[in-house]
Amino acid sequence: MIDFTKPVRVATKATFSGRSQYESIVKRDRTDLLIRQLQIHEQKSPVYLLISGSQTSGYARIINHLNEWMDARFIQTHVHQPDTDEEHQRPFFWKYWRQSPPKGEIGLFLGGWYTDPYLDRLIEPRDEEHFQHQMQEIRETERLWAEDGALVVKIWLHLDQDDKRRNKQGKRNNRPHDTWQVTMDDWRGDHSYEEKMALVHRVFSETHHPDTPWFIVDASDSMLCNLTVMHLLTDLFEYHLQKKPARPSLQRVRVDGKAPHADEAGTMQRHKKIDPGNSFETDGASTPPLNTIDLSKSLSRSRYEEKMKHLWESLYLKSWESYDRGQSLVIVFEGSDAAGKGGAIRRLTRCMDARLYRVIQTAAPTALEHAHHYLWRFWMQIPQQGKITIYDRSWYGRVLVERVEGFADPAEWQRAYREINEFERQLCRSNTRILKFWLQISPEEQLKRFRKREKTPYKEFKLTDEDWRNREKLDHYEAAVNDMIRKTNTDVAPWHLISAENKRHARIQVLETVEKALTELASGCA
Amino acid sequence: MIDFTKPVRVATKATFSGRSQYESIVKRDRTDLLIRQLQIHEQKSPVYLLISGSQTSGYARIINHLNEWMDARFIQTHVHQPDTDEEHQRPFFWKYWRQSPPKGEIGLFLGGWYTDPYLDRLIEPRDEEHFQHQMQEIRETERLWAEDGALVVKIWLHLDQDDKRRNKQGKRNNRPHDTWQVTMDDWRGDHSYEEKMALVHRVFSETHHPDTPWFIVDASDSMLCNLTVMHLLTDLFEYHLQKKPARPSLQRVRVDGKAPHADEAGTMQRHKKIDPGNSFETDGASTPPLNTIDLSKSLSRSRYEEKMKHLWESLYLKSWESYDRGQSLVIVFEGSDAAGKGGAIRRLTRCMDARLYRVIQTAAPTALEHAHHYLWRFWMQIPQQGKITIYDRSWYGRVLVERVEGFADPAEWQRAYREINEFERQLCRSNTRILKFWLQISPEEQLKRFRKREKTPYKEFKLTDEDWRNREKLDHYEAAVNDMIRKTNTDVAPWHLISAENKRHARIQVLETVEKALTELASGCA
Repeated sequence: MIDFTKPVRVATKATFSGRSQYESIVKRDRTDLLIRQLQIHEQKSPVYLLISGSQTSGYARIINHLNEWMDARFIQTHVHQPDTDEEHQRPFFWKYWRQSPPKGEIGLFLGGWYTDPYLDRLIEPRDEEHFQHQMQEIRETERLWAEDGALVVKIWLHLDQDDKRRNKQGKRNNRPHDTWQVTMDDWRGDHSYEEKMALVHRVFSETHHPDTPWFIVDASDSMLCNLTVMHLLTDLFEYHLQKKPARPSLQRVRVDGKAPHADEAGTMQRHKKIDPGNSFETDGASTPPLNTIDLSKSLSRSRYEEKMKHLWESLYLKSWESYDRGQSLVIVFEGSDAAGKGGAIRRLTRCMDARLYRVIQTAAPTALEHAHHYLWRFWMQIPQQGKITIYDRSWYGRVLVERVEGFADPAEWQRAYREINEFERQLCRSNTRILKFWLQISPEEQLKRFRKREKTPYKEFKLTDEDWRNREKLDHYEAAVNDMIRKTNTDVAPWHLISAENKRHARIQVLETVEKALTELASGCA
Repeated sequence: MIDFTKPVRVATKATFSGRSQYESIVKRDRTDLLIRQLQIHEQKSPVYLLISGSQTSGYARIINHLNEWMDARFIQTHVHQPDTDEEHQRPFFWKYWRQSPPKGEIGLFLGGWYTDPYLDRLIEPRDEEHFQHQMQEIRETERLWAEDGALVVKIWLHLDQDDKRRNKQGKRNNRPHDTWQVTMDDWRGDHSYEEKMALVHRVFSETHHPDTPWFIVDASDSMLCNLTVMHLLTDLFEYHLQKKPARPSLQRVRVDGKAPHADEAGTMQRHKKIDPGNSFETDGASTPPLNTIDLSKSLSRSRYEEKMKHLWESLYLKSWESYDRGQSLVIVFEGSDAAGKGGAIRRLTRCMDARLYRVIQTAAPTALEHAHHYLWRFWMQIPQQGKITIYDRSWYGRVLVERVEGFADPAEWQRAYREINEFERQLCRSNTRILKFWLQISPEEQLKRFRKREKTPYKEFKLTDEDWRNREKLDHYEAAVNDMIRKTNTDVAPWHLISAENKRHARIQVLETVEKALTELASGCA
């Protein structure tokens, strides 16, 4: 039985003396590992297998062995590398979302998302707050992978000080280029072994969790190390296969007994106000957010055109200034069917240089998107530094259509609020401003627009049977929207509730909000 | 009827005076375009719609209009941007393969793959040979997209000199950031309008083809321009829908009457010899290449270990030196079932730093891969500058298993030789060396290895019913392999035929060939 309550030093129970005995054990037991892997593949679990540690020369061997013992077609190996500029210009975890294995496959990460926090802390010391943020991002991301059914395993290849010294010595003589390596034992500087191991233990205690555990493997003897990893993985696959079918909603308890997260929804700061304009402000949760929208607002054509003229020029300039400052923008459009999302987006994009923005039309996920966590495709589309991504519908589908139509089960959509807040928080930490618009119309206005669509040839295709069915569930959708706004209205990414009964009013509201945000970004006072 | 024989100036036949008449025509005709687009979507044709031209301020409008008139869910807009480093470190067309639309969708390219050739020629003048290479790559790539069933359309938005000047003047006053733009009319320098247009016409004549045509649209009047584009696209979609079902093998004739390509197989240089070692050399095509392999070769264990020891150290160092010089390497392994590809690859990767190489296990394509040209997935995996990609099976599946098993029809696999040669040529032009290994064993040895696999638990999974079926088609496979070697044995990417009856001999042959190539790359004499 594996102990998941804390990071444990594990060792194989197999005993052997000499290489030939070792090889016969490998030959005997590798089939078990392979069979488990193929079962995991059939069961469509993704596996995140992260290997870190103080032994530089050991990890290449481990990669080769794991790829040999298992079916390499379902293993993607990712050795930690310096960021490319595409990676550098996005939040920290973008790189690892990009490398995340689809269901049924193994992502084998050497160093992975632990390398930078170690280096940031030792080579270029960053402050405690930065470190805490990194640890939180790791906890939250590993957690959401695990809760989505992934097996997340982290192995530390351990060498005590003496072994380590010997190893580096031997290495240096033969392999000049190893000095190029950025791994755990290339920490330059004068940190003692004790200082380094203190950090390692701190990282363990911050990121170990029964569902995303750390295991410590003695790497001083390579044959022993190989066998231990083989047997450990076999057991972990077996364990995962057994618990998978009836996976309970996970209870998160940190190893040291402290609760790892502020509150279950992860929205401790959600009621703070950032924008005194049209962003939504909760009033103690008594009034449903949607009821606060005044649908009677409208705008005359002449006022509309006057405002448009100014906004057109201003948005163009501000979006370039914001680009020059490296400030990114994510704009999310959600709203009832026929609320005018498309029209508002087109008015917005007409004001901006086509090289600065990208519009993502969120439709049903493709097979590849289905093979990943639901946030994966949205992560993949986030803007590079200085650019703008506009989502026509978004990750909020999880708590709207997927909730109401039953595409996500309750445990899935309920934990999505927290996952979304964390996603948006990571974006914000990476110089990305988020604007979220909810466009609201009355059921009567919606019916009117549906009828008009029926009669307009080029709009007809936009109206499907599904839209009519959705109308029958208006109450369900309204409850889902109110919950969504309440639970994801954070200070870093507040909702802007737009009265869309009058299209001119709605469009100007949207454009003015974007202009205000860009002005702040362009002036650096965001 | 559209004239495809040469780049033609097209104009809508619709006449109107004033905006309101224009708008009612748009309203009347946009439905036709939309319906055609949705039919194209259902028919699963990809569309490459490239817009270039001398009007800077016009193209943003066109994007907005096209996204509004059509169903934007199936349009991906790509405005030409400077390369990211991931793009910069790969061949020119990687960026555009990356952006290529899946079947049923429209890739809307503003500038696209024509921007760089224009800039290279005018801003930073490169030589004629460079320009010729670019034109060839464009011709070949557009051709293979079109032959795969894509609709490839190129529109030039034209302004005569006076209009152009007026337009730039107006723009400069209002839009300071437009100077950042890299488009056709931001050619800096002192080139006259005539010089620029001479280049444009040259590009037309190099890249126009009835199957990948250029259309010239007058952009001096924006309403006229919009309508012309709308009507042209409607007609082109209609035309494509009609011809699609019975698409004949294309006759390639260049507009000016010259044959655009050296010979039909695109392998004019294929019989030149580059490597006097174990690379295959045709002897006038009389002897089938496979018959030239001497299967009796073997190597003693002691010689093997001696050589291995040297190779281990040498490959490690050379692969780093080659990295330092920015020289990439692509290594392809093909061979009969059980020929020992996996074992040879593992011996090779054990000698190299895990950060330098990536092993691609080529299995049946995923749904996403199926939605693209068959070369797309291999393009996506080519190495960054200095890195190594090892393909365990590769794009040669098209002319081996897909040919023999009938997964590709004869027209498809027959044109694949040419497509593959062009792909490899583009890799080579981008500092990437290609090594292709064919591992050959006798049917008797294969049977022996199959029997052994049946009895080895961890190898059993490698043996499928398919393998036994393949054995029944040995003659077909042999013919396919002989054709493949003859038709793709180019000077830039020769085949290395490896006698794999003895595993030790085969592994050393492979490793020595890689070491030789890396030595050349590392010393810069490649």
